Amino acid sequence: MGTVDVTKLLRTAPVRGFLLDITGVLYNSSEGSDGVTIQGSVDAVARLYKESRVRFLSNESTHTTEKVVAKLRRLGFTLEESDVITPAPVAADYLRQRELRPHLLLHPGVSSYFPTSSPDANCVLLGDAEHEFSFHNVNEAFRALMRMKKPLLVTLGQGKFYQRTDGPTIDVGAYAEALKYSSGCDHVVIGKPSAEYFQYAIDAIRVPATETVMIGDDLISDVGGAQRFGMRGIQVRTGKWRPEWEHHPTVSPDLIVNNLAAAVNSILDAQQQRGVQNHV
Amino acid sequence: MGTVDVTKLLRTAPVRGFLLDITGVLYNSSEGSDGVTIQGSVDAVARLYKESRVRFLSNESTHTTEKVVAKLRRLGFTLEESDVITPAPVAADYLRQRELRPHLLLHPGVSSYFPTSSPDANCVLLGDAEHEFSFHNVNEAFRALMRMKKPLLVTLGQGKFYQRTDGPTIDVGAYAEALKYSSGCDHVVIGKPSAEYFQYAIDAIRVPATETVMIGDDLISDVGGAQRFGMRGIQVRTGKWRPEWEHHPTVSPDLIVNNLAAAVNSILDAQQQRGVQNHV
Repeated sequence: MGTVDVTKLLRTAPVRGFLLDITGVLYNSSEGSDGVTIQGSVDAVARLYKESRVRFLSNESTHTTEKVVAKLRRLGFTLEESDVITPAPVAADYLRQRELRPHLLLHPGVSSYFPTSSPDANCVLLGDAEHEFSFHNVNEAFRALMRMKKPLLVTLGQGKFYQRTDGPTIDVGAYAEALKYSSGCDHVVIGKPSAEYFQYAIDAIRVPATETVMIGDDLISDVGGAQRFGMRGIQVRTGKWRPEWEHHPTVSPDLIVNNLAAAVNSILDAQQQRGVQNHV
Repeated sequence: MGTVDVTKLLRTAPVRGFLLDITGVLYNSSEGSDGVTIQGSVDAVARLYKESRVRFLSNESTHTTEKVVAKLRRLGFTLEESDVITPAPVAADYLRQRELRPHLLLHPGVSSYFPTSSPDANCVLLGDAEHEFSFHNVNEAFRALMRMKKPLLVTLGQGKFYQRTDGPTIDVGAYAEALKYSSGCDHVVIGKPSAEYFQYAIDAIRVPATETVMIGDDLISDVGGAQRFGMRGIQVRTGKWRPEWEHHPTVSPDLIVNNLAAAVNSILDAQQQRGVQNHV
């Protein structure tokens, strides 16, 4: 593993809360199977549960939180379902609180969180619908927006694409741009890197943003998003990480580590040595 | 018809070339039939052929120029096929001149202009593909862009939406935005309001832009695009025209008329009275 120098990271404040991205941080995905656990991550999660405070912050929007947790447990992780945050249930809360009636275009795997599409919709809720993104369905979402006095689009994340075993695959953000261009609608993103979503995570973990780190494999969405929100952002060299990101023109992580275990052990060890409490 | 005051329009230069949009200017479209000729437009086109110079500049990208002309003839117009400019054959020229090998995603009605998709594509050619815009096809276009060293997207227009009898319908520009967002590609538009397309029309009509007017029903694409290119832009109150456009914050037509005939007759009559030649 090697020791990571966390002096610079810990200069501003101790770390008492850990937000972990899931895919590419806990395990690497693989189509048709559960994927492969990333070395040391099972023990790292166990240590966080014992010595600090942890929540899992994912942009997964094709499966329910229940299914995400079941998969992680099959991979060997011990965790609480209520500690896992995914965009779909957060969006469902968001709609309920604002009495929004959605027209839905999302993956069948998360439709159970929402009421059926309203004929009198006052927003469109868009997720990574994959093969549901037919011309007919996209056009129906567009027409729903065009019928609204103040057209509003709520999306589960705004990903550009994701890596599948058969190649890069276009993601929900593309269809959000399409609908915005044609309808002129407003757009709310529920998912990293939106501030609303990080706020939801901070409310859940109950640690101030300044004492929380986000650990992720996506430089822009995880690291950059967390930093803009006032957290420290840690880049792991696993998952979708790319070497050229280490010289990125706009986002510079507070720490770069080989994997989750290196980040967790280095931070908790260093704080222990200094007599800093790892817990809130 | 009433007389239209063209004093202001003619102050800068005489008009010796007329570029006419087709749909909404010559006729109003109607699904399942050829549509309805707009009053006076058949005679106006005949007068332009006799007394001045005229080309037809359309963003139609679901039918060949041949089919567009056949329909106009059925509606009563007399015109030359070589005077009608549509984006697909112009794009085919553009690709040939630059030795571009396209991956195609467009309407079957215009695929005859192009070679079949190249497995070694160095650009994606995108048109209003309608039901061909499946998730699979959009993702294949995205993957083609991702395989390119310098990803390039060429689109037939960049329309936001168009009006169909069953409702507003999302157009090619939406899918262009989607692909640009996810791939970071460059984007060339062949169609109004792109400068390349107006240049093509000016080369075809052989009248300087300063002595040419564009007559259209689309304030942004026809009128605004022509003005940015150094032409005068005339708005007709037919087709997709909307009353609120007459107080638009950024685009102000050089002339607003009830229909094509009013524009043509007012301009040609006024120039005749002043002894200005209508012809180049």
